[in-house]
Amino acid sequence: ALGLAGTATAAELKPEEQIQYRQAGYAFMAWNMGKIKANLDGNYSQPQVQAAAETIRAIANSGMGALYGPGTDQNIGDVKTRVKPSMFTEREEVGRLAMNFINAANELAEVAALGDEAEVKSAFGAVGKSCKACHDQFRAD
Amino acid sequence: ALGLAGTATAAELKPEEQIQYRQAGYAFMAWNMGKIKANLDGNYSQPQVQAAAETIRAIANSGMGALYGPGTDQNIGDVKTRVKPSMFTEREEVGRLAMNFINAANELAEVAALGDEAEVKSAFGAVGKSCKACHDQFRAD
Ligand code: HEC
Ligand code: HEC
Repeated sequence: ALGLAGTATAAELKPEEQIQYRQAGYAFMAWNMGKIKANLDGNYSQPQVQAAAETIRAIANSGMGALYGPGTDQNIGDVKTRVKPSMFTEREEVGRLAMNFINAANELAEVAALGDEAEVKSAFGAVGKSCKACHDQFRAD
Repeated sequence: ALGLAGTATAAELKPEEQIQYRQAGYAFMAWNMGKIKANLDGNYSQPQVQAAAETIRAIANSGMGALYGPGTDQNIGDVKTRVKPSMFTEREEVGRLAMNFINAANELAEVAALGDEAEVKSAFGAVGKSCKACHDQFRAD
């Protein structure tokens, strides 16, 4: 739990704040992925899926790369991180996976707005794969 | 830090997961509010402000009320919550403040897309007030 006032500039963020904010972004996307999955598995509510997809798209496009600053490659006191050191050195591969993810999230939001459940299912699968591709390489278990 | 796979349905979420997801949503909004403030205080980047405002709008419209289910009114083991018990009884007041917040977030995203800094400043102030109004009543210090 963060005790932040939300007034610090990005440049002023401490490493432990950056870690908590990036975890918050991923966690909130996971909640929204879970909602979309529940809709695909059960009763499909187009407005709920659209809102969830919009949230994932917005977070994907929010510039989370800024939350991987110096000093955020290791645990800081109680603030634990699961990032692998390679995330800070393999910049090209990170950029490729991040771009795949952003493109997939944009596509999901577009089809979610149109409401065809089969297309949403396919676009949702692509987003899930793009999350997993990054975790497989850059997140410790 | 959440260890969730992101596959549970909303109905299946444990109370401690709901608490962590709602804290994640608020924390991620705080990061984006901080970015907008830094832009207003320094060099103004319209695309960065727009992306941040889109994120706040999307989170505001993502149905976080679902994360205040039964059992989420108190700490659960290591998962601490700062919500006040009144949040679960004063439903009308919560609804009023939540609606003010959603309207303010929608307005901020609209003016951020148009790019007039003075309008963004004013709409940003209104969002900040709507966050604070809720915290003053429903969040412990
Ligand atoms: C409708 C009520 C409401 C609104 C609107 C609201 N908050 Fe909160 N906020 C809360 C409550 C309640 C908590 C405590 C949640 C908990 O600990 O379970 C909280 C917690 C937080 C936290 C701490 C999160 C953490 O990591 O523990 C931050 C930061 C925060 N809010 C920022 C914001 C910002 C920024 C906005 C507006 C853009 C906002 N809030 C709008 C009610 C609200
Ligand atoms: C570009 C790489 C990348 C992408 C894309 C990505 N993640 Fe992650 N994710 C990470 C890393 C790295 C961490 C570990 C962060 C840390 O602990 O500092 C993480 C952590 C997480 C966590 C744990 C958060 C916490 O509370 O500690 C969840 C849940 C998660 N990701 C879900 C997702 C979902 C869902 C998506 C796609 C919608 C996604 N991630 C996309 C790299 C990525």
